[in-house]
Amino acid sequence: MGEVVNPAVKLGILGCASIARKVSRAILLAGAGVELYAIASRSLEKAQEFAKANGFPSSAKVYGSYDELLDDDAVDAVYVPLPTGLHLEWVLKAAAKGKHILLEKPLSLNNEDLDKMVDACESKGLQLMDGTMWMHHPRTERMHKDLQALGDIKEVRSTFSFPAQILFPGFLKNNIRVKAGLDELGALGDIGWYCIRAILWALDYRLPDLVTALPNATINGSGVITACSARMVWIKKNRQDEQDEQEEDETTVATFSCSFHAFMTMHVTVQGTTGALACDDFVIPFSDARAAYRVLSNAGFADMDLTWRLESRDVVVDNEVPQEAAMVREFARIVSGIKRGGGAVERGWHDKAKKTQAVLCAVRDSIAAGYKTISLS
Amino acid sequence: MGEVVNPAVKLGILGCASIARKVSRAILLAGAGVELYAIASRSLEKAQEFAKANGFPSSAKVYGSYDELLDDDAVDAVYVPLPTGLHLEWVLKAAAKGKHILLEKPLSLNNEDLDKMVDACESKGLQLMDGTMWMHHPRTERMHKDLQALGDIKEVRSTFSFPAQILFPGFLKNNIRVKAGLDELGALGDIGWYCIRAILWALDYRLPDLVTALPNATINGSGVITACSARMVWIKKNRQDEQDEQEEDETTVATFSCSFHAFMTMHVTVQGTTGALACDDFVIPFSDARAAYRVLSNAGFADMDLTWRLESRDVVVDNEVPQEAAMVREFARIVSGIKRGGGAVERGWHDKAKKTQAVLCAVRDSIAAGYKTISLS
Repeated sequence: MGEVVNPAVKLGILGCASIARKVSRAILLAGAGVELYAIASRSLEKAQEFAKANGFPSSAKVYGSYDELLDDDAVDAVYVPLPTGLHLEWVLKAAAKGKHILLEKPLSLNNEDLDKMVDACESKGLQLMDGTMWMHHPRTERMHKDLQALGDIKEVRSTFSFPAQILFPGFLKNNIRVKAGLDELGALGDIGWYCIRAILWALDYRLPDLVTALPNATINGSGVITACSARMVWIKKNRQDEQDEQEEDETTVATFSCSFHAFMTMHVTVQGTTGALACDDFVIPFSDARAAYRVLSNAGFADMDLTWRLESRDVVVDNEVPQEAAMVREFARIVSGIKRGGGAVERGWHDKAKKTQAVLCAVRDSIAAGYKTISLS
Repeated sequence: MGEVVNPAVKLGILGCASIARKVSRAILLAGAGVELYAIASRSLEKAQEFAKANGFPSSAKVYGSYDELLDDDAVDAVYVPLPTGLHLEWVLKAAAKGKHILLEKPLSLNNEDLDKMVDACESKGLQLMDGTMWMHHPRTERMHKDLQALGDIKEVRSTFSFPAQILFPGFLKNNIRVKAGLDELGALGDIGWYCIRAILWALDYRLPDLVTALPNATINGSGVITACSARMVWIKKNRQDEQDEQEEDETTVATFSCSFHAFMTMHVTVQGTTGALACDDFVIPFSDARAAYRVLSNAGFADMDLTWRLESRDVVVDNEVPQEAAMVREFARIVSGIKRGGGAVERGWHDKAKKTQAVLCAVRDSIAAGYKTISLS
């Protein structure tokens, strides 16, 4: 019997956002299972320029409106890099047209809109996946296996920051992510998303019981967060009766910090009882061919605490394609499975997105309430 | 003219605490300027055993009470490793006898007692120095110089933890640092002290405006903190009028975490706008002969954010004697200067100790008040 060749998943892109360049390239790199099929912009000329500049095949469809792209029955799925405030409208329209959806982060400005998007997709048997690229790097899976050797996880710390003023002059005045309106979650939505996801990932997507933003967030004149931090707590279960002889602590905590003002950092540390795992480039690897992390173990003091020891093991994971192409492959694999009838919507992605959004919104609410603790349990 | 040989500073030790072994060794390593002169314990036998086990010279005085040691007029200075709750009593007695004092951390259970100790020393022209050994490693001075190249410091993060349950079985039930009473500041006093000092050190000992403990601290059945975290904030000055065109953020924040439950970590990161400095063993170096840290700079995204770059430079600093011996030397140098008449009390050490204590007490107060923000300004 010959190999069954499945038709490629036809992907359309709604809008010519900067990030769409990276994802267009990723679609081209993803291989035979997916096709860079269509681009739409509110301006046909802009869409044409984008297609030309980003290596679209000459057969690609170029549309002067998002609706036209959604009306193209050949389109299996759409990538939506539109401003966050437009997600609800266009995800609902795309779902109504039966398109699977790869959606840029943050997914929504609030939990209610995301629920509507997820419900719309699930009711039509459609996959929704958030564009969190690092989830798809083979390093991420390897790291997750190594988390099992850390003992009980006690604390996760994550930071994502870059000094916009230095790297992108004008960003802090003009970028959509520092203006009220379509992307008003600011740094929290743009980069805090990744820290929150990393923390949830490390804790197997258990929602924290408590979320507290830390004084002080930096809020610009438009009311948009340009730097903030937050604490997440998973409360200990029920050891009140044993506290007098406490030898175990069941609390797990996590802290993250995101900033448009501080030196560029993309760090996560997961600290257990018997070891720790640290990654300095978890969101975007330094190299597009391999990525590393460190596993720390066997720590202890020398006699008289004169010195101490720590074993540090570097793990390097090669990747065949960049993580954004791996993301496109994974999305196309699911879509293809659904299309052919053998596969199903993977609701795990919906669940991960909703939990990330829930924590993100809790941080925003905590800041708005003067750093009050928000209970999620 | 021949070299002037100054008489060695005669040091006495009040109590046979475990940490006194390390400091006895340090005094022996510190060289000709200081003499391991006397040891006192409430038990003469214990003092004798300690002197024998820790290489005291045969000429060393061995006393069966702290008062006897303080009554020895030949003693220039005392090292006080007694439980924190006894510091006030014995520091006041030592000061009354004209002894300079090297005092273990945390210095006090509250700010008022420390004020009394500092006042007693200053009124008699006596030096008080806290036993924060890492302050005296040559690496610390080198790191501080490198802080100047980080741009504006935006955030400091520090962690000190060790899994007591694994490294020291019984610690969480029996150690003085987990019991109400003499050392009831628990992990905050024992190891949080170092994180707070590192944060103040990085910010040139400016007291933060706000201190907030983070939910949730771990409190044992005796009401003692076994793990906690806190946030410190230095508020921006007066840019309210310019917020609409905010290109600068003048807020500086710091977060630290200390725990008797998590994998062993002694980390500090200082993150500026243009660079960062990171040290993985700031409290006790991995080696007693040299110590390292990393300076990060020149970060930026590649085109399309496909990858990013970061320059990392390792700095290694050799040390002639272990940092605890360098601490003893520095203390003896000041004492010797005062004794000979040419030197003076270095109030900077009193100031650093009081500020560290002030933040530490604010964290404790914040926890006690349900994680309320404490204003120090």
